[in-house]
Amino acid sequence: VITLTPEEALVSSRIRKLKEQAGSHSPSIISLNEQIPELNIQIDACFLSNPYATDVFLVYLKNELLSNDLKLRDVLEFYPSQNEVIANVLAHGLGVNVNNIFVGNGAVEVIQAVMHNFIKNKVVINVPTFSPYYEYVKEGKQVVYYALNKEDDFTINVDHYIAFIRANQPDTIVLINPNNPDGGYIAYEQLRKILVGLKQVENIIIDESFVHFAFEDENRTLITATELFKEFENVIVIKSMSKDFGIAGIRCGYGVMNKYKVMNLLKNGYLWNSNGLSEYFFRLYERDDFKQAYEVVRKRYIADAQQFFQALRDIPHIRVYPSKANFALLELLDGTTSADFVSKLLIKYGVYTRNCSDKIGLHGEFVRIAGRTRDQNEAIIAALRDMYGA
Amino acid sequence: VITLTPEEALVSSRIRKLKEQAGSHSPSIISLNEQIPELNIQIDACFLSNPYATDVFLVYLKNELLSNDLKLRDVLEFYPSQNEVIANVLAHGLGVNVNNIFVGNGAVEVIQAVMHNFIKNKVVINVPTFSPYYEYVKEGKQVVYYALNKEDDFTINVDHYIAFIRANQPDTIVLINPNNPDGGYIAYEQLRKILVGLKQVENIIIDESFVHFAFEDENRTLITATELFKEFENVIVIKSMSKDFGIAGIRCGYGVMNKYKVMNLLKNGYLWNSNGLSEYFFRLYERDDFKQAYEVVRKRYIADAQQFFQALRDIPHIRVYPSKANFALLELLDGTTSADFVSKLLIKYGVYTRNCSDKIGLHGEFVRIAGRTRDQNEAIIAALRDMYGA
Repeated sequence: VITLTPEEALVSSRIRKLKEQAGSHSPSIISLNEQIPELNIQIDACFLSNPYATDVFLVYLKNELLSNDLKLRDVLEFYPSQNEVIANVLAHGLGVNVNNIFVGNGAVEVIQAVMHNFIKNKVVINVPTFSPYYEYVKEGKQVVYYALNKEDDFTINVDHYIAFIRANQPDTIVLINPNNPDGGYIAYEQLRKILVGLKQVENIIIDESFVHFAFEDENRTLITATELFKEFENVIVIKSMSKDFGIAGIRCGYGVMNKYKVMNLLKNGYLWNSNGLSEYFFRLYERDDFKQAYEVVRKRYIADAQQFFQALRDIPHIRVYPSKANFALLELLDGTTSADFVSKLLIKYGVYTRNCSDKIGLHGEFVRIAGRTRDQNEAIIAALRDMYGA
Repeated sequence: VITLTPEEALVSSRIRKLKEQAGSHSPSIISLNEQIPELNIQIDACFLSNPYATDVFLVYLKNELLSNDLKLRDVLEFYPSQNEVIANVLAHGLGVNVNNIFVGNGAVEVIQAVMHNFIKNKVVINVPTFSPYYEYVKEGKQVVYYALNKEDDFTINVDHYIAFIRANQPDTIVLINPNNPDGGYIAYEQLRKILVGLKQVENIIIDESFVHFAFEDENRTLITATELFKEFENVIVIKSMSKDFGIAGIRCGYGVMNKYKVMNLLKNGYLWNSNGLSEYFFRLYERDDFKQAYEVVRKRYIADAQQFFQALRDIPHIRVYPSKANFALLELLDGTTSADFVSKLLIKYGVYTRNCSDKIGLHGEFVRIAGRTRDQNEAIIAALRDMYGA
């Protein structure tokens, strides 16, 4: 069992306080550094993002924008394009019509817009989950939770799920694929089976924010439910670009949905919700040269992450759940609390991980740990080995 | 009367088409350049922003952020701070409590949030106005228009306005000060008189997006209704930072309001609606060195704008309405249509201005023209003189 020294326990109580202030999210590295300056944070394994992709983006940004005073000024000084103009930029690459795309100030704005505007009476949300999905449900709407169980590695039993939804008759359901915080993945054909079985549900939200890290073949070909939207018009695909492209600070996301839903959202809002840099990114995202450079680092990052998860499995006293995302959910088996695990790893080793004690639907002691660069992954493994005396 | 040559008329019809696609806003310079490449746009007098302030911001940005690879990466890669953290950054400078501040992805997001969430049954909006104020009213709510008349230079008669509101009993009213598109200004004591007379109105929205260009003394001291909010808790101040600071591409705005209204908005949304660059700007905005540099260019820009409006008054066949904003509303008196005026000025002289023919509540031919740099203002005056043979 991992226990804290008295000094560590004092720092730990300050970390807990910051966590309470941050609500159902983790305090940022900036807050931690500001409030607890004696921490020496080396690795942010709380943060779910591909650092190699950030490298690629920064090269483009510097060469094309930061080196050109006039272009840089244009991006900062003038209004970005309207929602529909940027949707038009994305339409070709997504293979859908411009009027099926709603551009968001990060995926979380799309989640908010969809949860506020499209839930009629009842929504079914799988737990554990990403907390805005239940936090953004407006008063007066009913939330029903569908439990993903650790005994099943947090996977969905498709027949059981379909029967549950049919029995509960919600107008909206949410599937995060791969799921956060466990990384559980619903294979494309399984997902299709769910959609075939649930044609009567008005809104089937499929959040693909981590799908660039998932794979079903050796070549790690990209998979997307946007293909399923073409077949099932009740599908709403929500996509963050913060994780796969490593640009959370720019705020890029989008939704793909039935054109009447897009019209409903744009009818009285969301005119200029992109910013100059997000418009720059969206235009870059459509370019073949950028796509090729990105594909290389996407596959490299997946390889590193899967190797990291494998190495985690050799650490004693923890269970590593199967993940097709860029993070793994760990269960602590030796009686160590997740708070003590996170504190020890942060204070003694400078590695910041996500305490999942606030996650609805997790029974036990759980920590989420993100894959970072290969060097950082190796440092995390070394820290865990030392911590467990392995 | 200004008339178009057959060649100009052809280009003009293409401009009109772009305008129709852009809804109740003007097509951007980018769209115009892309769609009508034969245009040679020299001056964007459609765009309402202080270019000197953009200069100041760019110096800071380059020296502090773009020159430091680690800091730049942090701003782009990581999540920006949550709404409340940025509110806390702004609280000191605004002189209000952190829980009175709602941070927006540009003022337009604050407008949308307020219009969607706080109007109960009926809203009174003065016309002419900034179109999102009526476009963002949700179905089922009543909009009543209060006419600002050109015969009164679009000013408000306070007693008449108070009587009108009392008779109509709306729960929400909107005052843009200075008003867009005419630049009409309600003096601080007049505004206070309105608030004293309308304590029963639940939401009094005061949009101060152009207030940094207004003045009541020789020294051009900054005025703000945030002071009035401290006295009248039904006040909701909405502030864009795009115009005064010349950073429309970054998306910075905020609202100051009763803490229960802020709680209502944050309860199920708006968690990460700032971006890395807007957070950088908000922190800069609170610094004394930046404030001092900004004050210099704020006053310089006001002086240039007022001088520009004065010069416009010497052009024949147009009436220039009094403005304490950074733009002036022109009425064409010789039978020229606003569409022909805007087209001629754009095609022949490369000066882009705002055709106001789509503005509700304007009766006649109106064009809005923004103050730019002193050199550009002089070029605009020269173009107008030539156009009118003056």
